Amino acid sequence: MSKKPLILVTNDDSIEAKGIASLVEAVKPLGDIVVIAPDTVQSGKGHAITIHDPLRLKKSNVFPGIEAYTCSGTPVDCVKLGIYEVLKERPTLLVSGVNHGSNAATNVLYSGTMSAAVEGAIESIPSIGFSLLDYDADADFEASKLYAHKISEMVLKYPLQKGVCLNVNIPKGKMADLEGIKICRQGRAYWEDSFDKRKDPFGGEYYWLTGDYTYTDKGEDTDLWALSHNFVSVVPTHFDMTAHHLISNLNEEWDI
Amino acid sequence: MSKKPLILVTNDDSIEAKGIASLVEAVKPLGDIVVIAPDTVQSGKGHAITIHDPLRLKKSNVFPGIEAYTCSGTPVDCVKLGIYEVLKERPTLLVSGVNHGSNAATNVLYSGTMSAAVEGAIESIPSIGFSLLDYDADADFEASKLYAHKISEMVLKYPLQKGVCLNVNIPKGKMADLEGIKICRQGRAYWEDSFDKRKDPFGGEYYWLTGDYTYTDKGEDTDLWALSHNFVSVVPTHFDMTAHHLISNLNEEWDI
Repeated sequence: MSKKPLILVTNDDSIEAKGIASLVEAVKPLGDIVVIAPDTVQSGKGHAITIHDPLRLKKSNVFPGIEAYTCSGTPVDCVKLGIYEVLKERPTLLVSGVNHGSNAATNVLYSGTMSAAVEGAIESIPSIGFSLLDYDADADFEASKLYAHKISEMVLKYPLQKGVCLNVNIPKGKMADLEGIKICRQGRAYWEDSFDKRKDPFGGEYYWLTGDYTYTDKGEDTDLWALSHNFVSVVPTHFDMTAHHLISNLNEEWDI
Repeated sequence: MSKKPLILVTNDDSIEAKGIASLVEAVKPLGDIVVIAPDTVQSGKGHAITIHDPLRLKKSNVFPGIEAYTCSGTPVDCVKLGIYEVLKERPTLLVSGVNHGSNAATNVLYSGTMSAAVEGAIESIPSIGFSLLDYDADADFEASKLYAHKISEMVLKYPLQKGVCLNVNIPKGKMADLEGIKICRQGRAYWEDSFDKRKDPFGGEYYWLTGDYTYTDKGEDTDLWALSHNFVSVVPTHFDMTAHHLISNLNEEWDI
């Protein structure tokens, strides 16, 4: 009898979020599960790691019958603690999410959910980040659960190339509303930020970061296009940020 | 008379670090300078942004005669506040650093210094992150200063392609010890982490993240190779993390 896959589950919305509960449900039939998730909300933490503060790790009973821990750090800290401290062997698969809100396009960089998956890729572990385009804490994760199951099964069947993870975003809606899966490239977009300037009760100024996500990419092969046409977007994502095509340009232009 | 370039300066080691002082010196002859830097050390904060807490921004007198601010948030917060709140116009150039320690290879992902530059690239601002391979707070930044000046001048002369920034790492040593500049790709490496498990005075367990940086890339075209041969490494860096070569593979293999 072959051994069951070991699946590490994490997220950035904390162990209390509805999204991670649906992800645990989605992958439970596929292997042995260990959950290590932040003890507080870690949205927008990107690839941050905790180096100037101690980390706490605690057993959690949030998921009956499943080995689970909370960590005081970031999603990437959770992955590092999982691989190097908690798990007895390397996981077969790492899944992160399901995030409450989109991580499509350039949001991959700000996202704790996706940074956990990218950390998995750096560690040569097949990894997937899942996000639902619904920020509501009480969002309907039914379709996400089905897609998370299907895509995790596919990654177990067809191993990802070493160093690659998947950025999966799922439109809001019921299963019947969705058009299926599209393999995409990361769309180009940026946050047109605005700062809400306020005064604290003592007269001191402070700011809240807000903004509008602005698409500048008209391509029909992007995750932004797929999602706006009700497709589940899957972007194969790696951690090589080299703009390879510019190496020769710089060698030509620069006086070095 | 043509207008002077507007140069935004930031870092992740805080406004008090020796590295940012040397960077201000390096770019001062090239334009009008505005500094917005974290008020505390923000190493390893990656592309984190502050969304669940208010941000504070304060005028600083650290650099006599230069408009400067501290920000309570991350390096990426500094860039966002700079572009959308502080500066009257878009900067011509964004420079970040000089970081106390290497941001070569996969460290680009963890680095607050480089994430500030990547945020600049997302905003279509020519941006450069500088890092010195010396973690000492009292490191010798003389060679870094000269290279930061030279490379900033080059970027003002030959504009970078939109969406691209540079990851510049400088070996430890005097100017005469360095071999010059090499344009490189991002090397492949990972942190072989280990957690130092301790007990607090009340008997509670906690962990410190430590680790060894492990190179797996034998290429002679990487930043790791250049730095180990005493070259200043320059990696053109973008924020498209798509593994483009795998889109067709997934379309072939997957049953979608």
